[in-house]
Amino acid sequence: MAIIVQKYGGSSVGTPEKIKNVANTVVNKVKAGNSLVVVVSAMGDTTDDLIALARQITDNPDKRELDALLSTGEMMSCALLAMAIKDLGYDAISYTAYQIGIKTSGQYGKSLIDDINADRMKKSLDEGKIIIAAGFQGINDEGDVTTLGRGGSDTTAVAIAVKLNGVCEIYTDVDGIYSVDPRKYKNAKKLDEIDYEEMLELSSLGAQVMHSRSIELAQKYNIPVYVGLSNSNIRGTVIKGVDTMNLESKPVTGLATSDEDIAITVKDIKNDINIISNLFESVAEKKINVDMISQTAPIDGKVNVSFTIPKDDMKECLTILKSYFDNNQIDIDKDITKFSIVGIGMKTTSGVVAKMFKLFRENNIAVKMITTSEIRITCAIKQEDKMKTISIIAEKFNL
Amino acid sequence: MAIIVQKYGGSSVGTPEKIKNVANTVVNKVKAGNSLVVVVSAMGDTTDDLIALARQITDNPDKRELDALLSTGEMMSCALLAMAIKDLGYDAISYTAYQIGIKTSGQYGKSLIDDINADRMKKSLDEGKIIIAAGFQGINDEGDVTTLGRGGSDTTAVAIAVKLNGVCEIYTDVDGIYSVDPRKYKNAKKLDEIDYEEMLELSSLGAQVMHSRSIELAQKYNIPVYVGLSNSNIRGTVIKGVDTMNLESKPVTGLATSDEDIAITVKDIKNDINIISNLFESVAEKKINVDMISQTAPIDGKVNVSFTIPKDDMKECLTILKSYFDNNQIDIDKDITKFSIVGIGMKTTSGVVAKMFKLFRENNIAVKMITTSEIRITCAIKQEDKMKTISIIAEKFNL
Repeated sequence: MAIIVQKYGGSSVGTPEKIKNVANTVVNKVKAGNSLVVVVSAMGDTTDDLIALARQITDNPDKRELDALLSTGEMMSCALLAMAIKDLGYDAISYTAYQIGIKTSGQYGKSLIDDINADRMKKSLDEGKIIIAAGFQGINDEGDVTTLGRGGSDTTAVAIAVKLNGVCEIYTDVDGIYSVDPRKYKNAKKLDEIDYEEMLELSSLGAQVMHSRSIELAQKYNIPVYVGLSNSNIRGTVIKGVDTMNLESKPVTGLATSDEDIAITVKDIKNDINIISNLFESVAEKKINVDMISQTAPIDGKVNVSFTIPKDDMKECLTILKSYFDNNQIDIDKDITKFSIVGIGMKTTSGVVAKMFKLFRENNIAVKMITTSEIRITCAIKQEDKMKTISIIAEKFNL
Repeated sequence: MAIIVQKYGGSSVGTPEKIKNVANTVVNKVKAGNSLVVVVSAMGDTTDDLIALARQITDNPDKRELDALLSTGEMMSCALLAMAIKDLGYDAISYTAYQIGIKTSGQYGKSLIDDINADRMKKSLDEGKIIIAAGFQGINDEGDVTTLGRGGSDTTAVAIAVKLNGVCEIYTDVDGIYSVDPRKYKNAKKLDEIDYEEMLELSSLGAQVMHSRSIELAQKYNIPVYVGLSNSNIRGTVIKGVDTMNLESKPVTGLATSDEDIAITVKDIKNDINIISNLFESVAEKKINVDMISQTAPIDGKVNVSFTIPKDDMKECLTILKSYFDNNQIDIDKDITKFSIVGIGMKTTSGVVAKMFKLFRENNIAVKMITTSEIRITCAIKQEDKMKTISIIAEKFNL
């Protein structure tokens, strides 16, 4: 008897009617002979509503208490789904994080799952119960309730699948993973499967379908994760380890863009590794997430360094820069779009960069910065070139 | 340094603004040199809203899941109050029932507190923290969340006061305990103090100021409980062990009425203890709460038995009666008001019954049934006589 761990997002359980629909879907899977663990997010906008409530108390809610507050959203939806399933004549039981020992560590609001005590769940499954587990939450060593960050219920589901040796199905409001965001490129193709690493790159590049840590966890334990619509015949996407030697695999699987960053260039820095490393250490201390970094070759013992940071961190970053450099050394470019192509096939296929640059040149697309990893190429381009670039690249690489 | 356990009801924490007011009140008590534990109910109508949500899922919500659902209301208000206090620069920490080990037993929805593990609270108080504890909830031996029934937060507060050897203050939306419900008798006097037993009798007779079990618990451990308005100069009422030998104590402390019952009379029962005990056993099995019972002396080996039950249980009770007796033996009187006077002074003052009956006779008030305890006299009267009876008795006994 297969153990299936399903996760339903907030929009799937947004109303009592939708909760009853999920109950029916779950019961049908049980009728088909499976053991079910269902992880649910908070109903609809509950988490946002709770945050708004906290902000009516104070602009700066205590992080421990905010986690305690937010965790109630998932407890509510769990209890309601368990009621709905019991109402259909099937035995269900809701569990909070402390009841199934979801141990976490790290900061409030973005804790990591260390372990889950699977005993109670195994016992309940043996007794024929359908388990409804609260996503997004855990308990740290102090016994405090912690949350895993936005989308953390995905990670709860994968972690439970790992512990119970089950398969994982993430039901969301998109019908699968696309090579390109369909809102940006209408001919975007849905992928039947995607490799963990590709999905990770796409997630970090702004494809907000899945919580990144859930993919890392699935990759670590090699658990396939299905992503798609619930109650639908439309086939979704399986995230798994894809055989890169497959001759038919395409070099590029997906494409992502983000307008959330700015580029900062510091000119005429003395080419001293201490200066540059001190700078990036100071930036890191302020938890500013530096993404693309490029450095020009030294001329007359001086170099230029460019890097991108989230828009919101600009002010804080400038304060740091001014403590190291003169104002006229610092240049800010707000007009950038990060444009990335991702594909595990790039490992074994050469010429992808060359092909891309040829297309850029032919179409007069200026590249401001470029960084690459083994399976990703990211360029900073002008924002006005974004839609054109998406079309050209998606078409040529058959995305 | 005194430990004060305060409880704030749902209306006291009904909005973010009111929560901030409570935070201020709490901080002032701390500034005055006290250690504070604050027990809060769910905000405003949250509990009712959650019940309504459950009923949108099913007419008959699973009791375990309903308790899991309802318990989230108190978790929310706790976290919000802790945030509000921290925002004032004082250290506060919210605790759920499982975090401070509030162990319960019994049925879901009306569990009893068996014990509380005070260690974590003591440690937090030693660290100078203000504890915000979730009322109304506990954890049973199976690790399930249970609730204590409507008003159960009062019992949480008293139980914590017992464990921490503190004093208990219940803040609610009434300014104290009155000898008569002020809505029914405008000259009703507020009591400075009331004995535990008197308060228990009044509670069981429909004075819904406090959770009955909280009073039993306070009495058992002889913890004085203050009841009143928060943030007010109006003096409330202290529930405590009152010295009954005090010459100035009045024989009657309070008066209560209830229109929630009906009287059933069964005529011409063979005077066989088995029949009557079997009847009441069958009624008890259906959890029907029989209150007043009176039996006439046997005539020709036959007796009449009258008793009152809650209106809502009439149908079920009749089904039982019909399995024992003929239809024409059963008589139902829906026109009754239970009228009770309560006073620990009755133990030592004779003639209270006589005085009451004299007043009834002079004012032409018919008494249908009567039962008494050591500190209470309850009569069933006609509903139309209720207001008149309240005025007469309240005036003559100076209530």
